[in-house]
Amino acid sequence: MDNFILNFLTEWRKLDLPFEDATFIAAVSGGADSVSLLLALYELRRMKKLNLRFVIAHYNHDLRGEESEKDEQFVKNLASEFGFELALGRGKISQEGNLEQNARIARYEFLTRTAENLHAQGILTAHTLNDQAETFLINLIRGSGIDGLGGMKAVRSLKSQVPSPKSEDSKIQNLKSKILLVRPLLNWAKREDTENICHLNNIEYRHDSMNENLAFKRVRIRKVLLPLLEDFNPKIVETLAKTAFLLQHDFAELKKSAEQNTQSENNELLLKDIKNLSSSMRQHILREWLKNNRGNLRSLDTKHFEAIENLIFSQKSGKKIELPNREAVVKEDGKLFFRKLKVEKSPPDNYNQE
Amino acid sequence: MDNFILNFLTEWRKLDLPFEDATFIAAVSGGADSVSLLLALYELRRMKKLNLRFVIAHYNHDLRGEESEKDEQFVKNLASEFGFELALGRGKISQEGNLEQNARIARYEFLTRTAENLHAQGILTAHTLNDQAETFLINLIRGSGIDGLGGMKAVRSLKSQVPSPKSEDSKIQNLKSKILLVRPLLNWAKREDTENICHLNNIEYRHDSMNENLAFKRVRIRKVLLPLLEDFNPKIVETLAKTAFLLQHDFAELKKSAEQNTQSENNELLLKDIKNLSSSMRQHILREWLKNNRGNLRSLDTKHFEAIENLIFSQKSGKKIELPNREAVVKEDGKLFFRKLKVEKSPPDNYNQE
Repeated sequence: MDNFILNFLTEWRKLDLPFEDATFIAAVSGGADSVSLLLALYELRRMKKLNLRFVIAHYNHDLRGEESEKDEQFVKNLASEFGFELALGRGKISQEGNLEQNARIARYEFLTRTAENLHAQGILTAHTLNDQAETFLINLIRGSGIDGLGGMKAVRSLKSQVPSPKSEDSKIQNLKSKILLVRPLLNWAKREDTENICHLNNIEYRHDSMNENLAFKRVRIRKVLLPLLEDFNPKIVETLAKTAFLLQHDFAELKKSAEQNTQSENNELLLKDIKNLSSSMRQHILREWLKNNRGNLRSLDTKHFEAIENLIFSQKSGKKIELPNREAVVKEDGKLFFRKLKVEKSPPDNYNQE
Repeated sequence: MDNFILNFLTEWRKLDLPFEDATFIAAVSGGADSVSLLLALYELRRMKKLNLRFVIAHYNHDLRGEESEKDEQFVKNLASEFGFELALGRGKISQEGNLEQNARIARYEFLTRTAENLHAQGILTAHTLNDQAETFLINLIRGSGIDGLGGMKAVRSLKSQVPSPKSEDSKIQNLKSKILLVRPLLNWAKREDTENICHLNNIEYRHDSMNENLAFKRVRIRKVLLPLLEDFNPKIVETLAKTAFLLQHDFAELKKSAEQNTQSENNELLLKDIKNLSSSMRQHILREWLKNNRGNLRSLDTKHFEAIENLIFSQKSGKKIELPNREAVVKEDGKLFFRKLKVEKSPPDNYNQE
């Protein structure tokens, strides 16, 4: 068995994933990373090491005209050649704001819907050590704390993307679905390993022209920053990915220990508990609490957290910190409460643009 | 009062340092950073905000011929001009191994001896946010865990440098002395702030030609890596220094929580305690334990820690892991012991070369 395939199987075991009676969706863009994933799944299914149903999923972002069409055709052919079921998605991505992020959100919505429809246990993506190192650097440069520096996890649960029929709006619900997001290459495979296994098997892969576009921060990190860091340490990709991995585990410890020291019921937090924490732990607890209440931490920045920190220690009671999207943190009766502020019946004209 | 002086005083208060009846040694190389430190001490003494005895200490590493002599003369003049007592040290630095490290060790030995002789409470060094950011990057590239990524502390106790008369060799003893190493600029001053305050006061400072020598990793970090990172984030120095600061506190939390869960008596460690820890906490505990027993972690690397990790979980008892310098970790009776292996009476010829 090729080393790549062997490492894949070892990692599958380490991640405690099932060997039979389950469905997994494999996200395949057509690049070397995801083609190597497809190859590994094919080999391990053929050798009856993994007796699972794999469905290849490809999302056409329709961002690169003919190139996007060719990618889709390529994955179609690949799936049929290797005898995999195929799910195709397509959508026009909003060009407003962060293009990469809009594309990612649309792609994950499609993948999650596909997984839910097929009652799949998980979605497999082909992120490598290189992706982890790049994510680490992006977060480091942005100024993330230990939480963000931990980077991607090899396994985590996905938030459900399907709006509940009873819900009043169509926003993504903050429900942990049972679907796992699994990155079986993340902890051991370098990008060059994925290219090598494709070459070795005489399998073509596609090149995304956006991966050459230095307008994207991630591309500049990959093409400019990482090569410079390699002058200092030839194994910088492995080193940074390992650092992320260690910090991820340190963060989990911190969280566990902070949670043991804090009681949080639904949308309230006891002030005396969090006052006793060190400032770094208090920040972790507050972030978790807000994440649980809001679904994510989007549009919150340092100034919101500093305001909440001040609120906690200020003498006045009944004060409140307004957050974006008509939400607030309110201090009352020795507790912090998370509140959604009431929406006015007749919103102003610019209401929908917020 | 100039902002620089005001920030200095605020930080002095934050670091809980005394305002009277104490002696501090200020390490002054003659560069902008340390000259700004001297200036701040002068101003705060003049304004009677700090009623302390300050002694300027300068160490001549004698590495740059005439330049070194001129630095010494410059600091001599500066001290006399500003009415500070002066302690001068000088030594030939070994060119073998890491020159920067050898120079640092010699310098700190001199500073600590000076502080001990004068019964000083602490040594002040002029490290800035820039030094912290550079240290962070050096440790990141090297592959440090959260411990090293925390970087320098604004206050820590020094190890005593004076060999105990009863001690069998003249090695540095693992005794925490009462002398503090204090970095009053570390958490807020940028290098340009120190240059500005010198210019503002029409005070010259010296330029160390070694700071231009790209053969030194730290210089390459400063002159090549950081400018590139500034393209991504103009406030990268502040960002990295803040990250180090946060990780330093996260590490302190982890350590506290790990220590609460572990009993360690002198040179032994209960296996059942450390087996229950997560792998990241176990590593922290092992590192602390070895540091306490050895004085430092020098010449230990990943393979030693992996071997100890295997020793902890292996079924065989009575096994031992040899460490450098005839030391070992031994597993016996459900405990780990740190042992110094016996030295043979007639050492082989190459004995002294180890």
